[in-house]
Amino acid sequence: MADAKPRILIQLDTSPHASVFDAVTAIDAGLDHLLQYREVQPDQVRDLIHGAMFTRGPGDLKSTAVFIGGASVDAGEALLEAVKKVFFGPFRVSVLFDSSGANTTAAAAVLAATREFEGALAGVPAAVLGATGPVGRRVARLLCRQGAVTRIGSRELERASQVADSIQAQTGVRPASFASTTTTLAAALDGVQIVISAGAACARTLPDEVWTKLPALKVLIDLNAVPPLGIEGVEVADRSTPRGHVRAWGAIGVGGLKMKIHKQAVRTLFASNDAILDAEEILAIGQAIDAPAPP
Amino acid sequence: MADAKPRILIQLDTSPHASVFDAVTAIDAGLDHLLQYREVQPDQVRDLIHGAMFTRGPGDLKSTAVFIGGASVDAGEALLEAVKKVFFGPFRVSVLFDSSGANTTAAAAVLAATREFEGALAGVPAAVLGATGPVGRRVARLLCRQGAVTRIGSRELERASQVADSIQAQTGVRPASFASTTTTLAAALDGVQIVISAGAACARTLPDEVWTKLPALKVLIDLNAVPPLGIEGVEVADRSTPRGHVRAWGAIGVGGLKMKIHKQAVRTLFASNDAILDAEEILAIGQAIDAPAPP
Amino acid sequence: MADAKPRILIQLDTSPHASVFDAVTAIDAGLDHLLQYREVQPDQVRDLIHGAMFTRGPGDLKSTAVFIGGASVDAGEALLEAVKKVFFGPFRVSVLFDSSGANTTAAAAVLAATREFEGALAGVPAAVLGATGPVGRRVARLLCRQGAVTRIGSRELERASQVADSIQAQTGVRPASFASTTTTLAAALDGVQIVISAGAACARTLPDEVWTKLPALKVLIDLNAVPPLGIEGVEVADRSTPRGHVRAWGAIGVGGLKMKIHKQAVRTLFASNDAILDAEEILAIGQAIDAPAPP
Repeated sequence: MADAKPRILIQLDTSPHASVFDAVTAIDAGLDHLLQYREVQPDQVRDLIHGAMFTRGPGDLKSTAVFIGGASVDAGEALLEAVKKVFFGPFRVSVLFDSSGANTTAAAAVLAATREFEGALAGVPAAVLGATGPVGRRVARLLCRQGAVTRIGSRELERASQVADSIQAQTGVRPASFASTTTTLAAALDGVQIVISAGAACARTLPDEVWTKLPALKVLIDLNAVPPLGIEGVEVADRSTPRGHVRAWGAIGVGGLKMKIHKQAVRTLFASNDAILDAEEILAIGQAIDAPAPP
Repeated sequence: MADAKPRILIQLDTSPHASVFDAVTAIDAGLDHLLQYREVQPDQVRDLIHGAMFTRGPGDLKSTAVFIGGASVDAGEALLEAVKKVFFGPFRVSVLFDSSGANTTAAAAVLAATREFEGALAGVPAAVLGATGPVGRRVARLLCRQGAVTRIGSRELERASQVADSIQAQTGVRPASFASTTTTLAAALDGVQIVISAGAACARTLPDEVWTKLPALKVLIDLNAVPPLGIEGVEVADRSTPRGHVRAWGAIGVGGLKMKIHKQAVRTLFASNDAILDAEEILAIGQAIDAPAPP
Repeated sequence: MADAKPRILIQLDTSPHASVFDAVTAIDAGLDHLLQYREVQPDQVRDLIHGAMFTRGPGDLKSTAVFIGGASVDAGEALLEAVKKVFFGPFRVSVLFDSSGANTTAAAAVLAATREFEGALAGVPAAVLGATGPVGRRVARLLCRQGAVTRIGSRELERASQVADSIQAQTGVRPASFASTTTTLAAALDGVQIVISAGAACARTLPDEVWTKLPALKVLIDLNAVPPLGIEGVEVADRSTPRGHVRAWGAIGVGGLKMKIHKQAVRTLFASNDAILDAEEILAIGQAIDAPAPP
């Protein structure tokens, strides 16, 4: 058959209802049929994925793809592992993993930071606040991958240190870790040029009396969408907005990038049948959007 | 982007399965993607509606809409209230509320009655039997809004009186209430020109020995779809059919109007992003269908 | 309205998730909207089917159809019975029943066998191993309908005999039954030209030391998709492949036919509003695919 098969996206969601956000975004990226599955458990993945692998010929498998979402990033990771185990040989379809929007949000934050440094973060000192949550862990991992000299903060040093271990295991680079308490924060951030805050909603991660006294600081990015934001003085719609001596990004400012990356990632699913789009691959998709067109 | 976004309808249903009836009707009205959600609880509405509000730009939000349905009208009303609370400023999408078909059925019944009175019910004496159920309450409310001089009957006077209170609170007009018992019915209906019966399935609301002796009576409408109907002598397929000295409508006769109104209401959803279509708005949609085309 | 209505398939699935396999296959057969329902119980069928029957006019009902699936063939049969009871007069839509793929698999196996006998099985001695499972029972029934002289084997003679009773009640023809134990198998299969194995995964039904000594044997078909197959010496991808003195079919070889039959059965749904496609009707669809085009 010469014609392309209809593009089918199978939305595997771990929450009580499959995300409307993910559904509408995927539809706008371009697909023909969306199959929504809710409350998906890892032990149910095999039959569902067999139905994706064994219904089309090898040349048509790129028109079937899987999206893994839901509120819990941990539950989503368990699904992703289960999905990868089912594939074998050429019997596979592309997968986008973005539970809680963690991967697209982290990629967008790092892409926003990259824009402020003319496209490269290698050697740039950067700190992540709230680095032990699902978004913060990914932001820190992506910064390390980009060569930023990364420090990660949490209220409890122990947890920051555990995340540093995990990032070292994944990337080969160990970020520094610090306890982000009122008394230690100023010293911990000394010399950083980028601060990205990925703390819990309504938790203040960085008072302006601290960041205004960091002369090296150039960029503040706050991923909290609900005011009061984590970084005092940043507004939710900031998009490279001058605040004091730095440029600030709020969650809505980053959100524009996030939506572009999310949609391009969905389109990427239908370009081949063997993509596994996790944080690194999703950041690469964002960087390709930003790359100048070839002459 | 110049092109219109795909039209997405989000079907929020409170029942164990999302209604096939509502799904097929919406598809036939015209949409690109239907997202079905079942067993939706009010406390789950916020995340679902955020996914509708925050995925498209202001100019594109009219291509996303919400349908609230399910067997229980009370549960649907709770969802509608929850949905309305989530919207703010321009961040909103249009909503059609039609749990159990109550709004479209009531609107169709009142539109059928209106047709028999040359387009206006103002001053027309009318009675609703089975007026305390979800459809009956809406029929009574819409009749009051149209200026009909309305009486509402229930087997228990107390319940009819409570519904009258509620309609007065909503419309500013208090319908009369009566107990629809065998001995009181003839007197209670004296002088009415319209009787609309919205009683429970298989419950006789009006024997023919009563209505044949009401000389002022012009129209009988029975919304019960399953014989035996509530009004003795009316047939389910009646559509302005002469029965004795009156014209009769049965549930299938009214149903043709109901389907037209339902589909036009779905189309109306995609005309703006701020419509909330409850009983009154749905009746207005029906009246616009019946209105003569402008010269 | 002159235009055809969108083709809607209502997937009623009895399992915790609606089958992805059935969904993708149906989409590839050609439809406009797929409505997926999971965990469907027989007592919920009435409302769902009413929504299919009462939403379109008689001339448009052929554009709405129902697929019954899920892991349990017994649960699917209960749904099919419930669905058939809801229809009356012209108020009906076409239904395809293929829980666990049992009907399309059985039809494909019998069609594969038919191809090896120049299009007709009348009078051909055939045996079914693992004949008491859902696929095996259908294979045996279809062989009897085609006039094959059929023997059915199970490890327990009692169960094979019960299945023979049931097939006699359905077709008027009683297949012979036998206990398929190591010591009895060779004698039980004496003289057969076809053996179709539909046993449980990983259960050996026929060693090669038995079938290589059956001089009349011409065709071996093994429906087990997971090696080790039931029939020793047959490979899963065999498709009329010479093995010793016979031609062999494995599950993937039969699977190509199964997919063609499945898709053609979905297309058949939308050709009328009154088809009930169970095993026999599905085999007839397969035979029509194989039939030479009219001159």
